[in-house]
Amino acid sequence: MTKRVVILGSTGSIGQNALKVVAEHPTAFEIVGLTAGTSVEALAAQALAVRPRRVAIADAAQAGALAERLRGSGTSVEAGPDGVTAVAAMDADVVLVAITGAAALSPALAAIRRGRTIALANKETMVIAGRLMRAEAAQHGAALVPVDSEHCAIFQCLDGKPRHHVRRLILTGSGGPLKEIPAERFDSLSREEVLNHPRWRMGPKISVDSATMMNKGLEVIEARWLFDVPVEQIEVLIHPEAVIHSMVEFVDGSVLAQLGITDMRIPIQHALTYPDRLPTGLPSLDLAAVGRLTFEPPNREKFPCLSFGYRAAETGGTAPAVLNAANEACVQAFLDGQIPFTAIPRTIEAVVSHHRLVAEPTLDDVVAADRWARDEAARRWPRAVAR
Amino acid sequence: MTKRVVILGSTGSIGQNALKVVAEHPTAFEIVGLTAGTSVEALAAQALAVRPRRVAIADAAQAGALAERLRGSGTSVEAGPDGVTAVAAMDADVVLVAITGAAALSPALAAIRRGRTIALANKETMVIAGRLMRAEAAQHGAALVPVDSEHCAIFQCLDGKPRHHVRRLILTGSGGPLKEIPAERFDSLSREEVLNHPRWRMGPKISVDSATMMNKGLEVIEARWLFDVPVEQIEVLIHPEAVIHSMVEFVDGSVLAQLGITDMRIPIQHALTYPDRLPTGLPSLDLAAVGRLTFEPPNREKFPCLSFGYRAAETGGTAPAVLNAANEACVQAFLDGQIPFTAIPRTIEAVVSHHRLVAEPTLDDVVAADRWARDEAARRWPRAVAR
Repeated sequence: MTKRVVILGSTGSIGQNALKVVAEHPTAFEIVGLTAGTSVEALAAQALAVRPRRVAIADAAQAGALAERLRGSGTSVEAGPDGVTAVAAMDADVVLVAITGAAALSPALAAIRRGRTIALANKETMVIAGRLMRAEAAQHGAALVPVDSEHCAIFQCLDGKPRHHVRRLILTGSGGPLKEIPAERFDSLSREEVLNHPRWRMGPKISVDSATMMNKGLEVIEARWLFDVPVEQIEVLIHPEAVIHSMVEFVDGSVLAQLGITDMRIPIQHALTYPDRLPTGLPSLDLAAVGRLTFEPPNREKFPCLSFGYRAAETGGTAPAVLNAANEACVQAFLDGQIPFTAIPRTIEAVVSHHRLVAEPTLDDVVAADRWARDEAARRWPRAVAR
Repeated sequence: MTKRVVILGSTGSIGQNALKVVAEHPTAFEIVGLTAGTSVEALAAQALAVRPRRVAIADAAQAGALAERLRGSGTSVEAGPDGVTAVAAMDADVVLVAITGAAALSPALAAIRRGRTIALANKETMVIAGRLMRAEAAQHGAALVPVDSEHCAIFQCLDGKPRHHVRRLILTGSGGPLKEIPAERFDSLSREEVLNHPRWRMGPKISVDSATMMNKGLEVIEARWLFDVPVEQIEVLIHPEAVIHSMVEFVDGSVLAQLGITDMRIPIQHALTYPDRLPTGLPSLDLAAVGRLTFEPPNREKFPCLSFGYRAAETGGTAPAVLNAANEACVQAFLDGQIPFTAIPRTIEAVVSHHRLVAEPTLDDVVAADRWARDEAARRWPRAVAR
């Protein structure tokens, strides 16, 4: 009954929390593989603690140092992106994909093609290659179990119900740090104001996405592919308390919602244990103490990035990859002080509108669209600043 | 794929709504049997409209009039409680038990013993004979699908999950019409103040149960047997907006909630279609328009009937039957102007505390306990009033 677990991206926040979950249930899980990008020391320490069969470090230059640290430990060392993909394809029951960005695509597909259960913490794979990921999962009998709280909530509410039962998916969002700040002030927003998220402590990229509401736009695209639901049936609802993590409305008018405290270990553990559940030592949600939950429609004029997400999901093809790449480039430029906050949506809109769509892209088409969008965004920044 | 449906108690509010649901889905359902207590005209009109194979009227004195009305219609007429039970045992896919009170017990058991899916709108059967109903359902492979909104919500959240996944069932309640009225005023409450429920239009008995919160006490007992969950794991949460109809907390800390507009056709249709779902023409829940949901713990000092329910569920045996019967007698006495509002919990407490428990009762023991409790309550009213 022990599940063999591979963690791709074990030294990041999700990966570390996953190792905590595993450590709390020593008879339920066995770690067989770990990978990291560049954090050789952290990966070595993890490997020495849990003794996986194999580890991989994406930065091949660090493979020697890693092998040195793990000499005699019984753990073999792989190197480079191919090494990461090799660990992803190991004999395992569940593969947690906690690598950030498009780098997760190749290892995620390797695990899917082995028919594994994929605990998917990476967003970009479903955004840029959702159709492909879904088709491969169906072909190889792989289960895609989302780890981020919104999609995990929808996954639990749907619980395998057929598509004809579903009227709407309702993604909730806190509204981000700028919900109460007038749009007129957006031009002069500092990096610090934008990173000051009311509910979650997150990395800078995700915090900016929360401020622009691009996070919800990208989640709409993810949901479209994860659950095979047309974008017209996906709604976004602002819920500042972030207690309801998302909902499903069924055709009979019944709505199921998943609620909980904000601790990533819950969705991580859910994905690792699915379809079983195991106890956590975490406190119960106390709604009487919370007192009230509030809801409002999203402001699409103030946060155009949400509409960009819908539009890219409707367009399909390479459009989501272009949206995602343009956004990543712009967010980095904003964090680097190169462009003001309002140049993010302005640049993205310009890039998306100049893109030559490939309606049914291969992986190569997606990669090319991603590169084009980053270049095109960078080409537009001086003008964006100048306005 | 057409489901053959029997409706026991078709002329009441639930029965009428069930017929509306059936009428909206003419290819999904076929009514094969209807029963009523005394409403011969209403039953005849329903039978002439939907042409069931058999109908029954519990009041045998009216059987002649019913047969007269249905002559030549192709519907055969049964009479008396045995006639109702005979219709309950008809060849059917789902039997909706919408008869009020203990009179539902015998027909419900007849349907259970034929292994039918039971759409259970009656509360008393699970309160007074929950252990028996559950055991018989397990023995004969009958499914018990609750129709009242709280238990329907829990049923949907559980969706067949194993018991070891469940940490708590959370029954929500509006708090009733007296939530904001100080307990000091309870002695002088008029019938009208008590019947003025903030959320639902209901019959007078259920409205008084809502005012005393005995409704939640009885629902705790029902939930204990419907879902085979120990009473220590069942909680009550006050939620005045009544949008969340109830919740399940799982062992990993995840909470699933069922929400919806307040229309009985949703849980009725759910029970009739389960495990499928069909569309309704009802509007969607609009949480942005609702704006906010609030929660608070129940006030057990002010509403002791809630604790009575917990105690009876813990005690088991004939205790829930005594609680239910004493409550029914007291509510009727209050509605008749015989006793003040505060005499309801006072009398119930006295009756329950003088009961000689039968720990593993037969149906006869339950019936005897019910009769004893009614007599004992009536015997105590003069004293209750005199205090």
